[in-house]
Amino acid sequence: MELNSVEKLLRPRSVAVIGASRDPSKIGHQVLKNILSSGFRGAVYPVNPNASEVLGLRCYASVLDVPGPVDLAVVAVPAKLVPQVVEECGRKGVGAVAVISSGFKEVGNEELEKRVVETARKHGLRILGPNIVGICDTVAPINASFCQGSPLKGEIAFISQSGALAIALVGWTALKGVGLSDLVSLGNKADLNEVDFIEFFGRDPHTKVITAYLEGIESGRRFMEVVSKVSTVKPVIVLKVGRAERALGAIRSHTGSLAGSDAVVDAALEQCGALRAPTFIELFDWAVALAKAPLPEGENVLVITNGGGAGVMATDAAELYGVKLMDVPPDLAEKLRKYMPPFGSTFNPIDLTGMATKEWYKGALLEALRDSRVHAVVVLYCHTAITNPKEVADAILEAKREAGVNKPIVASLIGGKECLDEIQRLTSEGVPAYESPEKAVAAMGAIYRYKRMRDKLLRPKTYPELKVDIATARRIVERALAEGRSALTPFEAAQLAKCYGIPVLEKRLVASREEAVKVAEEIGYPVVLEVESPQIIHKTEVGGIILDLKSAEEVAKGFDAIMANVRAKAPTAEVKGVIVRRMAPKGVETLIGMNRDPFFGPVIAFGSGGVLVELVRDVAFRIAPVSLEEAREMVESTKVYAILRGYRGQAEADVDAVVDTILRVSKLAMDIPEIASVDINPFFVYEKGKGGLAIDVKVLLSEPAH
Amino acid sequence: MELNSVEKLLRPRSVAVIGASRDPSKIGHQVLKNILSSGFRGAVYPVNPNASEVLGLRCYASVLDVPGPVDLAVVAVPAKLVPQVVEECGRKGVGAVAVISSGFKEVGNEELEKRVVETARKHGLRILGPNIVGICDTVAPINASFCQGSPLKGEIAFISQSGALAIALVGWTALKGVGLSDLVSLGNKADLNEVDFIEFFGRDPHTKVITAYLEGIESGRRFMEVVSKVSTVKPVIVLKVGRAERALGAIRSHTGSLAGSDAVVDAALEQCGALRAPTFIELFDWAVALAKAPLPEGENVLVITNGGGAGVMATDAAELYGVKLMDVPPDLAEKLRKYMPPFGSTFNPIDLTGMATKEWYKGALLEALRDSRVHAVVVLYCHTAITNPKEVADAILEAKREAGVNKPIVASLIGGKECLDEIQRLTSEGVPAYESPEKAVAAMGAIYRYKRMRDKLLRPKTYPELKVDIATARRIVERALAEGRSALTPFEAAQLAKCYGIPVLEKRLVASREEAVKVAEEIGYPVVLEVESPQIIHKTEVGGIILDLKSAEEVAKGFDAIMANVRAKAPTAEVKGVIVRRMAPKGVETLIGMNRDPFFGPVIAFGSGGVLVELVRDVAFRIAPVSLEEAREMVESTKVYAILRGYRGQAEADVDAVVDTILRVSKLAMDIPEIASVDINPFFVYEKGKGGLAIDVKVLLSEPAH
Repeated sequence: MELNSVEKLLRPRSVAVIGASRDPSKIGHQVLKNILSSGFRGAVYPVNPNASEVLGLRCYASVLDVPGPVDLAVVAVPAKLVPQVVEECGRKGVGAVAVISSGFKEVGNEELEKRVVETARKHGLRILGPNIVGICDTVAPINASFCQGSPLKGEIAFISQSGALAIALVGWTALKGVGLSDLVSLGNKADLNEVDFIEFFGRDPHTKVITAYLEGIESGRRFMEVVSKVSTVKPVIVLKVGRAERALGAIRSHTGSLAGSDAVVDAALEQCGALRAPTFIELFDWAVALAKAPLPEGENVLVITNGGGAGVMATDAAELYGVKLMDVPPDLAEKLRKYMPPFGSTFNPIDLTGMATKEWYKGALLEALRDSRVHAVVVLYCHTAITNPKEVADAILEAKREAGVNKPIVASLIGGKECLDEIQRLTSEGVPAYESPEKAVAAMGAIYRYKRMRDKLLRPKTYPELKVDIATARRIVERALAEGRSALTPFEAAQLAKCYGIPVLEKRLVASREEAVKVAEEIGYPVVLEVESPQIIHKTEVGGIILDLKSAEEVAKGFDAIMANVRAKAPTAEVKGVIVRRMAPKGVETLIGMNRDPFFGPVIAFGSGGVLVELVRDVAFRIAPVSLEEAREMVESTKVYAILRGYRGQAEADVDAVVDTILRVSKLAMDIPEIASVDINPFFVYEKGKGGLAIDVKVLLSEPAH
Repeated sequence: MELNSVEKLLRPRSVAVIGASRDPSKIGHQVLKNILSSGFRGAVYPVNPNASEVLGLRCYASVLDVPGPVDLAVVAVPAKLVPQVVEECGRKGVGAVAVISSGFKEVGNEELEKRVVETARKHGLRILGPNIVGICDTVAPINASFCQGSPLKGEIAFISQSGALAIALVGWTALKGVGLSDLVSLGNKADLNEVDFIEFFGRDPHTKVITAYLEGIESGRRFMEVVSKVSTVKPVIVLKVGRAERALGAIRSHTGSLAGSDAVVDAALEQCGALRAPTFIELFDWAVALAKAPLPEGENVLVITNGGGAGVMATDAAELYGVKLMDVPPDLAEKLRKYMPPFGSTFNPIDLTGMATKEWYKGALLEALRDSRVHAVVVLYCHTAITNPKEVADAILEAKREAGVNKPIVASLIGGKECLDEIQRLTSEGVPAYESPEKAVAAMGAIYRYKRMRDKLLRPKTYPELKVDIATARRIVERALAEGRSALTPFEAAQLAKCYGIPVLEKRLVASREEAVKVAEEIGYPVVLEVESPQIIHKTEVGGIILDLKSAEEVAKGFDAIMANVRAKAPTAEVKGVIVRRMAPKGVETLIGMNRDPFFGPVIAFGSGGVLVELVRDVAFRIAPVSLEEAREMVESTKVYAILRGYRGQAEADVDAVVDTILRVSKLAMDIPEIASVDINPFFVYEKGKGGLAIDVKVLLSEPAH
């Protein structure tokens, strides 16, 4: 069977170490030594023109001299020699190349890195790195890295964009008893990146959970495409750093500050079904839970404890992590009563009290597992004099075996060394266990979040057909671009919205006070006047907008006032005239927008509108194209939804109109890539059946990125 | 020197174990055994009428038979015998009694518990418990508990309301290398509670940090009084559980849902300077940091790392935990350059890269410590082949010693067993160290939060003198109470507010449509009509309020409409008439309120007003009496403050008017305890200098609690 490139990288049948050295301080020596001591069963070929033998193996001057086929070449030569080495690998027909050597893009040497990739491409050869610590695989097994020691064997794949972290976590995971199927160092991602490996691990029978430490997700759309497929089969958990403003380090525009990249990453991960872990500790806590425990059939979780305090901690954590503590049916409560003193509690958490024995733990857990209304159980234990940790662990494992059902059980054992030992034993026997109730509940929460996301991914998505006038819309954009403008005027923006079936407040542009009065008389009072100028984005700030004008006289005075304000506060702005529009009836104030993320493409935003929007940040994001289900979910995830749904006696608002407009903005973003952003704020939502209205539409343009 | 009761409990010179048993399965045996094996140097007297000798010691029939003085009596007899035992302790002149026995309030036996306390009070004797696991003190030392094993000696006092947790944490803290000065089990808190111990540990030279696990803070006001004093001397860290709705389990009224007890606990802890930890892991992580590291002189924090990834993690965490990463001055950057390769970074985090040696770590840290502009340093390390954990720990400790300055340093060492060992060594030598960058930064964040809170507590508080008409206010309340009502009418509420100098919209009560029109003509259009009925709290829901009526005709029609609506939707409500008021100009919509917490007393609320208030929950709480500084801080901590301050070209609003009104509501709460709650929503805030206006004031009453 022919292996693909990633398989050849991770599970090679033969490996060449190019730059293998006799000097133990050299990486080329350490890598070879690790391969030899890792139990690798295939052929190993040291390559080094200056040695005839390294670590007891015959050494070759070039990979071209190697007698047999080579699946994987690990390269640890000075950077400047790498292109030549890759060329030789190509000619040799090597399966894949892992470039450990550093001295490329990470030190500003982009040119050299490009040459390496081009050389590889020419031969159809895939490259991992450069600037990596290597690969550790516990399946082959092979440790083709300069990590000290190998990871424990297990079912979690770990992909790391940080080399230092990868090395350090080999020790840390071993200390914690966390087993890995593979550890992959991504380095500069010149060719292969996280997506290639997620795709591979998605199909890999040796991997149950895929984890990744990422600093950037440059192939955002491919990442989402692959992860949303893989997530239906096994969990993907991502530690994506760079949440902090300081870490992002980029100056962002006003609208950009809402669609801030980290919020986009959050939305994208959620949308494609990946879990996002806040630190590597949770990353592996959750991965262990998902690797060891089955998925639950339903949402009913029971907590069993021997300490009221631990029970309250778990209750607090359950709310935080979205774990639903069931109400205990009376007949089950009665059965549980047998395993506690009279002052115990059958109000979930089930409190067996400090008097709990091994038999009580086992009995109560058996009742819970055998009851079809209970879908998952969290067992909590505080080390007491009555029952030692080993007895509790035995009770849990015996009940699990005897119940003969496949329900997730997680445990927390609070105490000293004895507890730590039993935590590791329980975990290795399929009951993920932790040192605190909160960690146990968080792990159960990860199981549920994964299950809910997977269920959602498995449901079909609907993309309703929308009638739009794309030709006119395109002409509006092209004309503005041809004039060298990077924004549509409000008048053009409203026209564009109309082309896409977005209900928009009609606006008329006038040049004089007389014309303003004439138009106002036509459309009817009250009206709003606002200055029209490409340079003035925030009209309120320059006194460029006046509301609620009720007569010809007020309109005339308003026109003059705006002109005077703008002359004073924005003297250099080019004034194209003044817009006259009806004062629209007020609806629920929302915002609908679109922004392009450099990595994930068009991002659709929906949330509370008006001036408070930036302060409360009640905004949901989704990557376009947005499905009907996703649009509805976006709306339902915001706080303003409570108002839309009809809050405290108010009528229910037209949520369908909001969903429809979101879909139309999404389509606009997909159809016309020259549109950089759309900002409909406010979008008034009226009573159910009465639709909505875009009061203000801002559209920015940019040349499409290719 | 005479010791007080708490000192006699924790550091006794002599101890009697009442209920000492020869049966190793009995708690009375275990406690005695623990005392004897804990290194206690004072006299120990077993008391048991049925034995002449226990564990080699002479046993007495009653504490009255003990020859010498007894500082502490530990009681482990059946619950029903406890009153008699306490009586004898009183007669003997015992210093304090710790009642281990259970079977009291926790199993519904409140009567028996009351008898124990009354007996003790009669003799001026203080009781700890009942229903405790005992006391472990590492100063005396004495382990007068049935915990298995004693805690490590250290400088952290731990007070636990959960016995099971206390026992379990003896093992856990020992495993983690966390040393305790004392461990106190509070049990049912029949007499002594957490406040008594916090007060003691505040003065105790052996305790550097006070920690507590609490399920309730019943003596809320005394707690705040004591903690705000102790917090100026040493940190108090509290793990208060019961955040979740389910855990609270109480049904709360509409306003109560805002002033929800957990938000009140948060506010109270913040106000008295206590840190609140989310789980026991953070509780001890932070306690160790505060026990081991000095407080910083300023806010400038430098991070030094050998891995970019760890640096980004720390940057993210710094934002989360309020740690301020300084910008590195160019001259310092130049000095740091000496300790890194050319591709290292002097943009904080300082990245020495994976090539970092012991010398580089030491050199860079020395430069940082010697620079007076750097106030604290976080050192991060990923285990690499270049430098082992011991070398890094040595580098840190040598630099600390050689720099000869007293600045906080925290560290994170990511890796396996070797790292774990060095983490414990660094910590014990004054550099709190952790397994992840986030934990290290969180610990530094705790140091800073404590420092900032302490600084705030040390600044004087101002309580401006406010002129109010307390006599009239009292009469309004008393009259309503005399009529058996639990709410003021809107009209009365407005009067009450006026008595306290709160600017309030004038309202006139009318009984007929003709009268409504007459009043409207007097006060001028536009006006608002609203129904006046004690039973109708949310007027919008029944169509009981109509805005913006602009003519006599509209007012007449409005009056009829309200009457019809109320008849239809609230047919049983007693209608006292209709209120006519001016349509006030719109200001920034805020909320000012007061609610009484059963434990902390009057709580003042300020936040965003209007219908969004309950959705965005932009509300700050403080326990009354609120100082001028606290009122200002409340306002500044909300999101609506950005609007008040003048947002995007809007004029600055009258923040002083808000602060003044908060102080007046606070005074009202302190002056008239019969007022259960005040809800001013909306409180319109106008431009600076133009004040504010309470549009709607709701006041609920209750008999004062004694």
